[in-house]
Amino acid sequence: MAAPITHIPAKDDLAYTFGGRLPVAHLQSGDVLTTYTEDCFGGAVSTVDDLPSRVCQMPYLNPVSGPFFIEDAEPGDTLAVHFVSIVPARPVGVSSTFPHFGALTSTSQTPTLQPPLEERVWLYDIDTCAGTVTYRARNADYRVVLPLDPMHGTVGVAPAGFEVRSTIVPDSHGGNLDTPELRAGATLYLGVNVHGAMLCLGDGHARQGQGEVSGVAVEVAMNTTIAVEVIKGVVTPWPRIESDDALMSVGCARPLEDAFRISQHDLVTWTASLTGLDMLDAYQLVAQAGTAPVGNVCDPNYTMLARLDKQYLGAAVAYTAVHERLRQIPPPPRAWNGRR
Amino acid sequence: MAAPITHIPAKDDLAYTFGGRLPVAHLQSGDVLTTYTEDCFGGAVSTVDDLPSRVCQMPYLNPVSGPFFIEDAEPGDTLAVHFVSIVPARPVGVSSTFPHFGALTSTSQTPTLQPPLEERVWLYDIDTCAGTVTYRARNADYRVVLPLDPMHGTVGVAPAGFEVRSTIVPDSHGGNLDTPELRAGATLYLGVNVHGAMLCLGDGHARQGQGEVSGVAVEVAMNTTIAVEVIKGVVTPWPRIESDDALMSVGCARPLEDAFRISQHDLVTWTASLTGLDMLDAYQLVAQAGTAPVGNVCDPNYTMLARLDKQYLGAAVAYTAVHERLRQIPPPPRAWNGRR
Amino acid sequence: MAAPITHIPAKDDLAYTFGGRLPVAHLQSGDVLTTYTEDCFGGAVSTVDDLPSRVCQMPYLNPVSGPFFIEDAEPGDTLAVHFVSIVPARPVGVSSTFPHFGALTSTSQTPTLQPPLEERVWLYDIDTCAGTVTYRARNADYRVVLPLDPMHGTVGVAPAGFEVRSTIVPDSHGGNLDTPELRAGATLYLGVNVHGAMLCLGDGHARQGQGEVSGVAVEVAMNTTIAVEVIKGVVTPWPRIESDDALMSVGCARPLEDAFRISQHDLVTWTASLTGLDMLDAYQLVAQAGTAPVGNVCDPNYTMLARLDKQYLGAAVAYTAVHERLRQIPPPPRAWNGRR
Amino acid sequence: MAAPITHIPAKDDLAYTFGGRLPVAHLQSGDVLTTYTEDCFGGAVSTVDDLPSRVCQMPYLNPVSGPFFIEDAEPGDTLAVHFVSIVPARPVGVSSTFPHFGALTSTSQTPTLQPPLEERVWLYDIDTCAGTVTYRARNADYRVVLPLDPMHGTVGVAPAGFEVRSTIVPDSHGGNLDTPELRAGATLYLGVNVHGAMLCLGDGHARQGQGEVSGVAVEVAMNTTIAVEVIKGVVTPWPRIESDDALMSVGCARPLEDAFRISQHDLVTWTASLTGLDMLDAYQLVAQAGTAPVGNVCDPNYTMLARLDKQYLGAAVAYTAVHERLRQIPPPPRAWNGRR
Repeated sequence: MAAPITHIPAKDDLAYTFGGRLPVAHLQSGDVLTTYTEDCFGGAVSTVDDLPSRVCQMPYLNPVSGPFFIEDAEPGDTLAVHFVSIVPARPVGVSSTFPHFGALTSTSQTPTLQPPLEERVWLYDIDTCAGTVTYRARNADYRVVLPLDPMHGTVGVAPAGFEVRSTIVPDSHGGNLDTPELRAGATLYLGVNVHGAMLCLGDGHARQGQGEVSGVAVEVAMNTTIAVEVIKGVVTPWPRIESDDALMSVGCARPLEDAFRISQHDLVTWTASLTGLDMLDAYQLVAQAGTAPVGNVCDPNYTMLARLDKQYLGAAVAYTAVHERLRQIPPPPRAWNGRR
Repeated sequence: MAAPITHIPAKDDLAYTFGGRLPVAHLQSGDVLTTYTEDCFGGAVSTVDDLPSRVCQMPYLNPVSGPFFIEDAEPGDTLAVHFVSIVPARPVGVSSTFPHFGALTSTSQTPTLQPPLEERVWLYDIDTCAGTVTYRARNADYRVVLPLDPMHGTVGVAPAGFEVRSTIVPDSHGGNLDTPELRAGATLYLGVNVHGAMLCLGDGHARQGQGEVSGVAVEVAMNTTIAVEVIKGVVTPWPRIESDDALMSVGCARPLEDAFRISQHDLVTWTASLTGLDMLDAYQLVAQAGTAPVGNVCDPNYTMLARLDKQYLGAAVAYTAVHERLRQIPPPPRAWNGRR
Repeated sequence: MAAPITHIPAKDDLAYTFGGRLPVAHLQSGDVLTTYTEDCFGGAVSTVDDLPSRVCQMPYLNPVSGPFFIEDAEPGDTLAVHFVSIVPARPVGVSSTFPHFGALTSTSQTPTLQPPLEERVWLYDIDTCAGTVTYRARNADYRVVLPLDPMHGTVGVAPAGFEVRSTIVPDSHGGNLDTPELRAGATLYLGVNVHGAMLCLGDGHARQGQGEVSGVAVEVAMNTTIAVEVIKGVVTPWPRIESDDALMSVGCARPLEDAFRISQHDLVTWTASLTGLDMLDAYQLVAQAGTAPVGNVCDPNYTMLARLDKQYLGAAVAYTAVHERLRQIPPPPRAWNGRR
Repeated sequence: MAAPITHIPAKDDLAYTFGGRLPVAHLQSGDVLTTYTEDCFGGAVSTVDDLPSRVCQMPYLNPVSGPFFIEDAEPGDTLAVHFVSIVPARPVGVSSTFPHFGALTSTSQTPTLQPPLEERVWLYDIDTCAGTVTYRARNADYRVVLPLDPMHGTVGVAPAGFEVRSTIVPDSHGGNLDTPELRAGATLYLGVNVHGAMLCLGDGHARQGQGEVSGVAVEVAMNTTIAVEVIKGVVTPWPRIESDDALMSVGCARPLEDAFRISQHDLVTWTASLTGLDMLDAYQLVAQAGTAPVGNVCDPNYTMLARLDKQYLGAAVAYTAVHERLRQIPPPPRAWNGRR
């Protein structure tokens, strides 16, 4: 393992797109990187009076750190990104409603003639020692202690076809997937579309519910350590996630059933190739043994995961066991690696 | 508690609709009922050569037992249906593909010019002692032992507005919800639309994956014990489920995001009424603490659940603690009640 | 041609479902029927102060006249319903917004946490001599004279599979199609699902825009003359419409692309069978020559039409030229038959 | 009026994205430009044996001419693009099926486990004197003469938010709208997102059906003359089209009802601002008087138009009558301007 690399972006280094940017650093396959990511509001919301639509300005939302140029990553390869540690960098997380954004309001893509919901900010106390995030109601004396479950909402590479996409968008290049499965201990597989892959990450969440129904999670800056590895000559059509227990395929689309179809189709195909089952036998196995964790139902594309426990795959090993290898990397001191 | 009532339907007693039928038996609020339900193929598929499209005939699919007339249930009330025990009545469960049905094929509602997938049947060994269901591939020597998790795919009451709906359809009256959450130990709440409620149930699954992606679960006849209770004067707009740990709201619609919206909207509303939080504070809590278990993505309406752990609801108690009361009912001998 | 039959329903004769009702009259294939249909509000809205949500009560909305039992109509046959004349029965049509109904508001199927739009009623002067319908703004001195184009929003038969459906719903049995193509001079083809077909019609519109975006057209009671004919042994899977110039297939579903797919799939299949083209050649012809008139985007299912000019079909004749035969029926005196 | 400018792109000048490219020429507001556009296959399909998936290579599909830098166009302005003339540059148009593309097949966004439809090419004779396009079946002796109706499927400007989008994609920047309304005589209004607007156009169709159901129109290179004008300080949120008779708003989204909602919402808003009606009065007028021409139901976003006849808008004039001014520009000799 190479010596750890640290990249702390200056404010002007932050990116708002996947693709279309010069790299901020170069990594080798096998490198371990520690970086800092700003929250989705660029740190501009710190009190309940900082209404996001006033203190933020489009398109300067959802900044990501990167792009990181991965040496030797070429179109047709797969980039494995293993999350060694994700630690909130502030003791307070923020959430909010945002005008015409979220699943229980009309939006710019599902417009109605109704006025927007009230814009309101919530602050959450984050206790990394206790492993908790505390919700406090704004209009009542009501507290709920929730488990801390740090994750990155936005991780991706440059898109194919010369495209450049806003960091708000999830698609086959990754991006704003907004799934709680991208926590420490997980490995994300992304198909490489351009020389160097151009990896970016950001949008840390202290936790989020499945679906991110209000459009905003418990947003917080993060100190994050990842390890990257290039898997040569292996195509990955949609993002995939491996945890210690399960394989997951990610689909991003609208309507939501198409995100479901994409994720399930990829998991069936992947299962067939890992087990040697024919397509219908793999379809049947996934149908009875699979789960379907919801990512987001609020972003420009929705995200669904199709998940299968590894125990149902016999001796099959994905991507030449890169997850198991990268899982051995010791977390940095004071890290949160999902194993406490 | 009243003495248990047993109703074993004759083949001609089976129903294929919710609504439009005379009751097969009358129950009082508080009664415990043991009944038998046929599988979705009416028991006609017992070998891999029994292709469902040949041995079954539309509309004689997905039979249900009932309707049971619940004394004192009136429009505007809620019917609580607690599953005391659900036990597979046969040692073999069946599954299949079905022409132009399922999420990874074109269908009658999403038609294309492509021919259907191959129709293929799978048999599963069910071991109620070991608590397992065993998948065997058809075109490979491949076995996977899965946990037995018996549930009912189809439970509902007569619809509102004088409608009669096929048992294939899930909607606000319940019906073909196809969610694994309807297992023993759970309580289903259904709004009553007609005098007597007219409860029916069927479509037992030894288990199913989230989404029921191939369109067919591990189908099996069931011996099932339920307890019913009428909650007077309480309106329930969409089906709700309570387990020992969580409250769940069910949404049925297409596209899938509308099923998501319905379920989340109901859970937010329900949370607000249980806690006294205002709507936006409840929205925020559900957004960060909720999960979204997928039911089916193959039936005429799709089903999504919105789920919140009870521990995040403080001292709030749903429906005057009817779940806690009914949970005390002892299961019959040799029952499967989800507590083994 | 048989002597014309007249059926004027009493208020208590009106139906609110397709299926589930005894017939109000019996017709022979070839009969001509004149009937009266109430407007979708049951005539309860006659001033701008009659807010529909107050003066109407669910489920007593969208009444239809019928069912008419058509002798000799059996499952597997097709019922041709030709509209000889549709004449507004009142000089004023009404429209409105309705809480949480319409395409530019959240609804019960697409719920949000936003309050409903204002409920407002508009009255339209209908001049059957001039052939006009006059819009008047409520909050401005603004009038627009629009063409009178009378049509029926709701026409259908009893559904298959023992179902009974609300008259609000469009589906394969017809129902609340809400397409302006159902005007005088058109022939509607419906697959027969039950003995006698059980035809109902209602929901007259003095005119409507494509999509019925606000959820309510210019609603008015109608005096309508139809002719019916049974086409034995011909299956019609989805409603079809024939005008003097074109053939049209109707699809009803959500999401809207599925309504589009159903309609286009049926038109491609129909074109292939009429011309002898193979499926791909028919697909190609429809792709370049077809149009896609929108019906409704507000009802429980949306409606799309796929339309092909007859001139592109060579000598092909649909349904043994029943449209041409029925088109010869002279309209009654003072009728509106689309030929003025 | 300035002297006409001619720009004939070399093969290497063709663009495959909106945004991300340097301009090929500079235009002033008021300029008239004549350019050449290649067909969507880059001219590679000229016989029925040239299967597109073999002779074309992703992402080199759907080339556009441009970008043209429009002097003085700034974010917050509107660019008016008037089509003076669109003339097929070849006597033969081509169409095809394409594997897993189109509305009546599973696709990469709506995947299934079914194999793709047969890939087949059709050639169409284009007669610009007679104004006809002739369909010939591949597997039958069947010809249909259709009206020539030349249009551009793809016209747009650089997107907002630093994005670069494939020319296959329609969205708020325009792009692959694929609506037959973009014919000679029409004016397209596009919101300007970047300095210079960066206009591109291509994807000529000799004609297409509404919905472009097979995914491919009658594709042909075009000789096209446009006039451009910058309307300072006027924001246009979604593409709009003005013809001599009507105003149209364009929505691009999935599912199709969201494209419908966007287009109707924009037309209602636009109508209110043109007439002074309040939002609900405008909603009501559009609901009864509007039509909804379908664009495409096959591209990454679907396209719907909301259309209102100008005669229903009284004396209202859109965009300071730029359409009426540009409509006076005489077409070049031998042009096709929709007025023959």
